[in-house]
Amino acid sequence: MGGKAVLAFSGGLDTSVVARMLQDRGMDVVTVTVDVGQGGDYRRVAAKSRRLGAVKHRHIDARAEFATRYVIPAIKANALYQGKYCLATALARPLIAVKLLEVARKEGAKALAHGCSGKGNDQVRFDNALRAGGKLPIIAPIRELDLDRPAELEYAAEHGIAIDKVAKRYSIDQNLWGRAIEGGDLEDPYSEPRDDAFAWVRTRNLPAKPTYIVVRFERGVPVAVDGKRMRPADLVAYMNKKAGAAGVGIVDHIEDRVVGIKSREVYETPGALCLIEAHADLEKMVHTSHQSRFKRSADAEWAQLAYTGLWDDPLREDLDSLIESSQSAVTGDVRLRLLQGGMRVVGRRSPRSLYSRKAATYGPGSTFDQRLARGFVELWGMQSAEAARLRDRR
Amino acid sequence: MGGKAVLAFSGGLDTSVVARMLQDRGMDVVTVTVDVGQGGDYRRVAAKSRRLGAVKHRHIDARAEFATRYVIPAIKANALYQGKYCLATALARPLIAVKLLEVARKEGAKALAHGCSGKGNDQVRFDNALRAGGKLPIIAPIRELDLDRPAELEYAAEHGIAIDKVAKRYSIDQNLWGRAIEGGDLEDPYSEPRDDAFAWVRTRNLPAKPTYIVVRFERGVPVAVDGKRMRPADLVAYMNKKAGAAGVGIVDHIEDRVVGIKSREVYETPGALCLIEAHADLEKMVHTSHQSRFKRSADAEWAQLAYTGLWDDPLREDLDSLIESSQSAVTGDVRLRLLQGGMRVVGRRSPRSLYSRKAATYGPGSTFDQRLARGFVELWGMQSAEAARLRDRR
Amino acid sequence: MGGKAVLAFSGGLDTSVVARMLQDRGMDVVTVTVDVGQGGDYRRVAAKSRRLGAVKHRHIDARAEFATRYVIPAIKANALYQGKYCLATALARPLIAVKLLEVARKEGAKALAHGCSGKGNDQVRFDNALRAGGKLPIIAPIRELDLDRPAELEYAAEHGIAIDKVAKRYSIDQNLWGRAIEGGDLEDPYSEPRDDAFAWVRTRNLPAKPTYIVVRFERGVPVAVDGKRMRPADLVAYMNKKAGAAGVGIVDHIEDRVVGIKSREVYETPGALCLIEAHADLEKMVHTSHQSRFKRSADAEWAQLAYTGLWDDPLREDLDSLIESSQSAVTGDVRLRLLQGGMRVVGRRSPRSLYSRKAATYGPGSTFDQRLARGFVELWGMQSAEAARLRDRR
Amino acid sequence: MGGKAVLAFSGGLDTSVVARMLQDRGMDVVTVTVDVGQGGDYRRVAAKSRRLGAVKHRHIDARAEFATRYVIPAIKANALYQGKYCLATALARPLIAVKLLEVARKEGAKALAHGCSGKGNDQVRFDNALRAGGKLPIIAPIRELDLDRPAELEYAAEHGIAIDKVAKRYSIDQNLWGRAIEGGDLEDPYSEPRDDAFAWVRTRNLPAKPTYIVVRFERGVPVAVDGKRMRPADLVAYMNKKAGAAGVGIVDHIEDRVVGIKSREVYETPGALCLIEAHADLEKMVHTSHQSRFKRSADAEWAQLAYTGLWDDPLREDLDSLIESSQSAVTGDVRLRLLQGGMRVVGRRSPRSLYSRKAATYGPGSTFDQRLARGFVELWGMQSAEAARLRDRR
Repeated sequence: MGGKAVLAFSGGLDTSVVARMLQDRGMDVVTVTVDVGQGGDYRRVAAKSRRLGAVKHRHIDARAEFATRYVIPAIKANALYQGKYCLATALARPLIAVKLLEVARKEGAKALAHGCSGKGNDQVRFDNALRAGGKLPIIAPIRELDLDRPAELEYAAEHGIAIDKVAKRYSIDQNLWGRAIEGGDLEDPYSEPRDDAFAWVRTRNLPAKPTYIVVRFERGVPVAVDGKRMRPADLVAYMNKKAGAAGVGIVDHIEDRVVGIKSREVYETPGALCLIEAHADLEKMVHTSHQSRFKRSADAEWAQLAYTGLWDDPLREDLDSLIESSQSAVTGDVRLRLLQGGMRVVGRRSPRSLYSRKAATYGPGSTFDQRLARGFVELWGMQSAEAARLRDRR
Repeated sequence: MGGKAVLAFSGGLDTSVVARMLQDRGMDVVTVTVDVGQGGDYRRVAAKSRRLGAVKHRHIDARAEFATRYVIPAIKANALYQGKYCLATALARPLIAVKLLEVARKEGAKALAHGCSGKGNDQVRFDNALRAGGKLPIIAPIRELDLDRPAELEYAAEHGIAIDKVAKRYSIDQNLWGRAIEGGDLEDPYSEPRDDAFAWVRTRNLPAKPTYIVVRFERGVPVAVDGKRMRPADLVAYMNKKAGAAGVGIVDHIEDRVVGIKSREVYETPGALCLIEAHADLEKMVHTSHQSRFKRSADAEWAQLAYTGLWDDPLREDLDSLIESSQSAVTGDVRLRLLQGGMRVVGRRSPRSLYSRKAATYGPGSTFDQRLARGFVELWGMQSAEAARLRDRR
Repeated sequence: MGGKAVLAFSGGLDTSVVARMLQDRGMDVVTVTVDVGQGGDYRRVAAKSRRLGAVKHRHIDARAEFATRYVIPAIKANALYQGKYCLATALARPLIAVKLLEVARKEGAKALAHGCSGKGNDQVRFDNALRAGGKLPIIAPIRELDLDRPAELEYAAEHGIAIDKVAKRYSIDQNLWGRAIEGGDLEDPYSEPRDDAFAWVRTRNLPAKPTYIVVRFERGVPVAVDGKRMRPADLVAYMNKKAGAAGVGIVDHIEDRVVGIKSREVYETPGALCLIEAHADLEKMVHTSHQSRFKRSADAEWAQLAYTGLWDDPLREDLDSLIESSQSAVTGDVRLRLLQGGMRVVGRRSPRSLYSRKAATYGPGSTFDQRLARGFVELWGMQSAEAARLRDRR
Repeated sequence: MGGKAVLAFSGGLDTSVVARMLQDRGMDVVTVTVDVGQGGDYRRVAAKSRRLGAVKHRHIDARAEFATRYVIPAIKANALYQGKYCLATALARPLIAVKLLEVARKEGAKALAHGCSGKGNDQVRFDNALRAGGKLPIIAPIRELDLDRPAELEYAAEHGIAIDKVAKRYSIDQNLWGRAIEGGDLEDPYSEPRDDAFAWVRTRNLPAKPTYIVVRFERGVPVAVDGKRMRPADLVAYMNKKAGAAGVGIVDHIEDRVVGIKSREVYETPGALCLIEAHADLEKMVHTSHQSRFKRSADAEWAQLAYTGLWDDPLREDLDSLIESSQSAVTGDVRLRLLQGGMRVVGRRSPRSLYSRKAATYGPGSTFDQRLARGFVELWGMQSAEAARLRDRR
């Protein structure tokens, strides 16, 4: 093919193999590593790129952007795919794609490349985000050649590509918003994850006393924890640490991948679980029942789009508009109690609260005239009761 | 008015006051207590009815019927109102109404009566269920006279009605499926519930080691726990005990009552939470993604109907038909891990599993041809990408 | 009670009776007539107010505001309650309430009043909109006294209130956006409406040739018809005339009122039907399938809120945000063909069209590679087919 | 490959080409034509099969089965994909697949084959239905070779395959339930369909007087028209004729194909439009508002599944269970008025009607106590109004 290919590069097996394969096809490779909080030593990644023969390596720190433009909207949307997965990897992909496209434009690249398998979700997220931004061809050798891990390892050995020997029991993807653990025993969905699968959430020697966290939200955005204002990326990192130390944050479920495969997924997402639980709880206090009901469907749709690689579908913007409108009232404090894997909200307050003690109380001082209820109840159930009577007459 | 009134009777303040008020209106009172697993001494309730002047008292053991015809369908529907409340009280009301109607027919009653407030949900559930079964007038003196608790206590004192002095910090409603705690400090939604609010879930001296529970489902019905087959009512009771001992089962949230009031609700529902979590997890393994997505909306609707007193709306039967159809595949085992308030599924298996390790694996031996994915991905995102490009051109 | 009451006043039976009843209660009455395009002689209404003893009459021309702030959003939402009713009356009520509140503030009124029955929808729309704007008491004598039409006529006769003798076969409500016809034979839902029920839509001597209308939309707003740019109120009026002359615009269905009553409703809404059909058709060309699917549910919810008197619920604003976002692509022309009651879109075009002849064609010159479809189809149906095979094995 | 291939055969260009191509690959071809009401001369189809070299031809009359097991459920589901398309072709595909599988089993076939393009919907419907029934390979040469119409014609000429010269302006697919017209000018979505596109619906010399049709439904099934009981297939044919003669039944809209392409579709579906309109209208009379609201979403989902080739997904059965349950009340008569392309319901009646003239009337003799409405309205809007006041204070 010739010309430059811009490759999303982590330094792991898949992308290392692809870096070399692109050169086999006669392309110059520009590797791009986008920092979305995955940690690790970026100098080693750069060195690896050089050793693999890349003509250029770009390292882009996108942590603040990831937190602000992807994670915060996910909190506002209480985004949990199929009720469980906080979308950590899913949210990072479109951002990485945007950065790839920027580099491709600057470098005058002829192609974009990634190391995704044809069995996973990330290919969908990358491909669609890359296509939404233009018409450059996308090269995905792992998928095109239907390579599995053994085949990749063989290619690596043949081409002198060094692969970390470390802890290959699991395949890990992590960033600021969460950590996904796959492979090994976990592929048996009846097998309990072993403790060594976990790096963020403490599973032994947990504190015997509850941990409390107070999160302050302003218009849907978590702005302070335990009284300290923090920027989004720092706040999420703080939550991950504190909740993880309390043993909170492990998710284990069966998930439907975009391509139709079911997979057993295990995640560590302590910050995400706590922030979304707190946010959703506060919403219940300030949203009308109509808002609550409808927003649940909008939230589920948002998560569905983000998961299935449709971040760039205009519907996502439409949903963001609805969600943003709904956040105008989501200001207040939520108090969480964490203990040994258990977490629950134990208090919430808001200047926009629709809760009224005087209306709700069965005690003295009520402002609610019970007699109004008679008419309400009779009309509320009128059709249902009539229908039931007609049915029973049959 | 004259004639007999059949009164749903618990022996508590509300229904005791009403028992007497009905007599003030010249009616003969037949009290009915329906056992849905609320516990307590039924002889004392009967004695109280006699002392209050009732002409007859009926005690009806409906535990098995409650478990089989109300709780099991709720499990199949993963029924959690607003994502949190397992509907314990809500599900019992229509059954109690059915029993009231039966007694009313036998007794030739002229009216039905209950002690519900005009601020709560139970009036709606009772009234609608009673109207669905016929056209007898319903007498609800607490609502009609807009009485609050102090006014009721005053009436009780004036009329020599003895009221238990015990533990009046909270107002409790409980049955097989859960325990609701209201009033007192809990009316301040920012105040953490004190330990003395809880009776089913241990909050101190919790076991340091995880508790495991394996639940076996057959066509959506939990039929065995830890290898022992049990009838529904026994199984739920067993789960309450075991999960409660592990500190699991407390719910605390803001809830929208039918009448439009928001209330802070605290529940103990250990069995319900575990059974629903296990059931929902198993469904993810055996349902297609289309079933999962649609059933979520059907489940939410089911919970909404049950909560808002529309049990008898024909839609509930329609939903039950859909849900029943979906349960044909929901057979298998789910393994739960409980620790100090934390609970998660750690294993699931089913003869109807749609999970295929060979399809999902990134390792060797895959049966899935990755090359198929290229076409899928390109068509899947085609419209979205085109729309994004057109938008950005603007 | 004393003080001033501000009354929404049409000069018809209901509001005339109420104007007098308020004075019976010792109040000074300020009548307010809001022009939302209902037509009629406003000087006669003013004169009637004077004769009835009102201390002041206000006539407010709100046609442009009604069209711009209520009708246009309804078009963007393709708003048809239960698939049929364009919400003409429903949309006008919140606006009238806003005007009442403005007058009440200026006049220092002590109460607000309307002539709505307790059986209809308008009481809900008025009451809620008035309460959303403040806490003044609302007086609704027809509802409070459970008056029916004969009782009102009797009161009118006793108090010397003149009532138009004209055409009392039907009860009519109309404004710019539509005309509702109730009562008389129409209360038998199996009886066909007689021609004399209709005033806007021609039912005899219809043109033998089709009428064509081209509507131009810009970001969801109809801005021109047949090449002529018009302001919203004028455009709607033009459409009513042209479509009505072609025999298009009659709706006849069974509707669920907010209060739980079913009613048979007959409407003339030629402009609304054509504009919504055209708008919805254009959306199909420019929205992705994901947008189309989700917007249908948002549209239905919008209509539900507007119909059920929840215009001021924050959810309506949330939905408007989503809808507005989705309209950025809704620019183009739609060509309608009308003939003797039949109407259909026969052409549409847009600069934001997602339709591509080259992709769609089965003829030569295609840009779509059919081979991509193989992978798509196989993955698309994989789970469903596997589930079906497992099921049939049972 | 060798062995027998069972081919879905219409005798048209696509399937004729495929019949020969399969033989080029060394296979014996068994052609199967399933009669779902498409009309035409079946002896000519059989003769064509013979001439093309098939070893066997099977003609299967499935009209009654199609009507009863596919069309009737579609009526119960008010099935209109994207609000417009009655799914005529979509519903026939799974049935044809079932018949193909039966023949394949009898014949001991090694493969299944069809002539679908990779751009259309039918490939999805065939492939999925065939896979749901087993694991035989599917051969789809048009898609595999990315053939367009000119390429097929060239192949036909080279191989001496005779193609009807007739009316090749449009590509037609038709059966009992409807007729789809594609291609030619219709590919320009702003171009009005010419009269010669239509064969079922009269477009000129329409009757000047309205046509009335009375349809009787029993539990959701249309069982009689104009007083004559008919079997489903006959009833649909009668409706097509009568409504088509009145000029009713043309649909023209932009549709989202499964594969992501938008297409402009023109249909003639007179019977389907009338039966669904009548059925949906009757449902409004007998369903509670809760049923109506939820069933709309179930109906839309049903149509989505049928359209997108997911007939065999278990969700379709789940939905059928819900829908069947809801039909128990759908018994009664509906009167339609048709005139020159316009159609509307003008009367409906049912023994299960929830419409009550006495409740609805504003005239004398009402059974509805308006005073009940006060409480209803106040509670109904309480949260919304409070939320609006809090918002405006900001």
